[in-house]
Amino acid sequence: MVKAKSWTLKKHFQGKPTQSDFELKTVELPPLKNGEVLLEALFLSVDPYMRIASKRLKEGAVMMGQQVASRLQQKEEKWVRTGPSWAAGTDFIPGVSWPGVIFLTHEVRNMELIYVSGLLTVAGCKVVGAAGSDEKIAYLKQIGFDAAFNYKTVNSLEEALKKASPDGYDCYFDNVGGEFLNTVLSQMKDFGKIAICGAISVYNRMDQLPPGPSPESIIYKQLRIEGFIVYRWQGDVREKALRDLMKWVLEGKIQYHEHVTKGFENMPAAFIEMLNGANLGKAVVTA
Amino acid sequence: MVKAKSWTLKKHFQGKPTQSDFELKTVELPPLKNGEVLLEALFLSVDPYMRIASKRLKEGAVMMGQQVASRLQQKEEKWVRTGPSWAAGTDFIPGVSWPGVIFLTHEVRNMELIYVSGLLTVAGCKVVGAAGSDEKIAYLKQIGFDAAFNYKTVNSLEEALKKASPDGYDCYFDNVGGEFLNTVLSQMKDFGKIAICGAISVYNRMDQLPPGPSPESIIYKQLRIEGFIVYRWQGDVREKALRDLMKWVLEGKIQYHEHVTKGFENMPAAFIEMLNGANLGKAVVTA
Repeated sequence: MVKAKSWTLKKHFQGKPTQSDFELKTVELPPLKNGEVLLEALFLSVDPYMRIASKRLKEGAVMMGQQVASRLQQKEEKWVRTGPSWAAGTDFIPGVSWPGVIFLTHEVRNMELIYVSGLLTVAGCKVVGAAGSDEKIAYLKQIGFDAAFNYKTVNSLEEALKKASPDGYDCYFDNVGGEFLNTVLSQMKDFGKIAICGAISVYNRMDQLPPGPSPESIIYKQLRIEGFIVYRWQGDVREKALRDLMKWVLEGKIQYHEHVTKGFENMPAAFIEMLNGANLGKAVVTA
Repeated sequence: MVKAKSWTLKKHFQGKPTQSDFELKTVELPPLKNGEVLLEALFLSVDPYMRIASKRLKEGAVMMGQQVASRLQQKEEKWVRTGPSWAAGTDFIPGVSWPGVIFLTHEVRNMELIYVSGLLTVAGCKVVGAAGSDEKIAYLKQIGFDAAFNYKTVNSLEEALKKASPDGYDCYFDNVGGEFLNTVLSQMKDFGKIAICGAISVYNRMDQLPPGPSPESIIYKQLRIEGFIVYRWQGDVREKALRDLMKWVLEGKIQYHEHVTKGFENMPAAFIEMLNGANLGKAVVTA
């Protein structure tokens, strides 16, 4: 018998998640069935989306999430990416299909353009970033942002955006939402495009959402706003994207930074810290 | 000398516009210069957008707007569409370019799909409408809506939308905004498309906008939202659209209804009534 640890959602979050919302459980795993693989988690991910996606879990269920794992039952130490849970010891995946790709998603929370900066710089775009600490700003400038500012210390987000790009913005990659998004919308150029993939600024207050954006921005500027989740792209398209991204990382065309927390027992702490913005880059937990 | 009457914005609206926000003025027009045409207003339009577009006017300026006019200085009584003002007696347009096309925009405020219903019904779409009176609902059903409900009397907008289309909605043409839009977004199908051309439900409270839509709707349903104004389409494209629309009206392929107020002196009253939803169809004032 193999023992496995997992973090469960003891009770649904009210406002900011706290340590007591989670419970660590240990279970004995049943023998493997045909097609199943025994995995050991190596790196686990904590992400903003978990704050709201957990609403769909029953209390007592294992937290959802992604991890990089190794197969325990093969000698070959090929890394695999496993399914959705905060399960450290082991995990089952019938028919593992993902190659060894660690997460390429960077700190997108308050640095919306970091992920695309490598590509956009090449294409001749001006890239502006906002982040919540001077350390993050220094990192953004280091990896080639044309302009970056600390949105927590500027007098006015609107003025900071105007100063960084007086002509306005063509594109905005949004993971912040709320008042921040409203202000950016007011600074878009006509026919600007906004991709929305997250809204971390409101996840702790979904019951009392802040005022919506001015319809004037959307109508008069004729903006296009599109929501998306990564699972839109499946099969070959996804496979190719993962390989391309890995290649660009290895070639240095995509810069990334990881914020690593050690120890599976610190999953809730890493999650809470990440929601508070304490991480510089992708928040990862080593099992 | 020709005398001309015009309605001016005496003071900017606070909340709901009132009669005292307007002032009727009479001026003597200077002699025509080369390239100018003397026009007499026949039909004037009052539209929701004027509620917020007036913010850009200086107090004392003539209210913006559109009208159908006749040329006073030609014998030919060819109708022309004039520029933006609530000016009744006359109006100048250097180089009149529009053929005699009255507005085809229907009552879109609480009947978002009426404009496209003729086309969509032909294309095999199911068309659902919401409006604020039983009389409007009867009209929607008369012109071929598959389903229509009075959003003011239903117990729950969400339930009414679910009942009218249990599988959700592919497209939504929004002129309402606010909480209404938020509820519709929650009932869209994945990859649904929303065209936003107005937001009448919030125009009287732009300083205290209602909560924004749930980011969950936009992200998880991967919705596409696009704002637009009619002036996006200029030149030949606009000319062709106006001719096509006129043709479809004459052929009966597009149904319309006008809510006519008599007398230029009643412009403010017609405008205020229209914002209160008293009109069935396009609100028009005869000069």
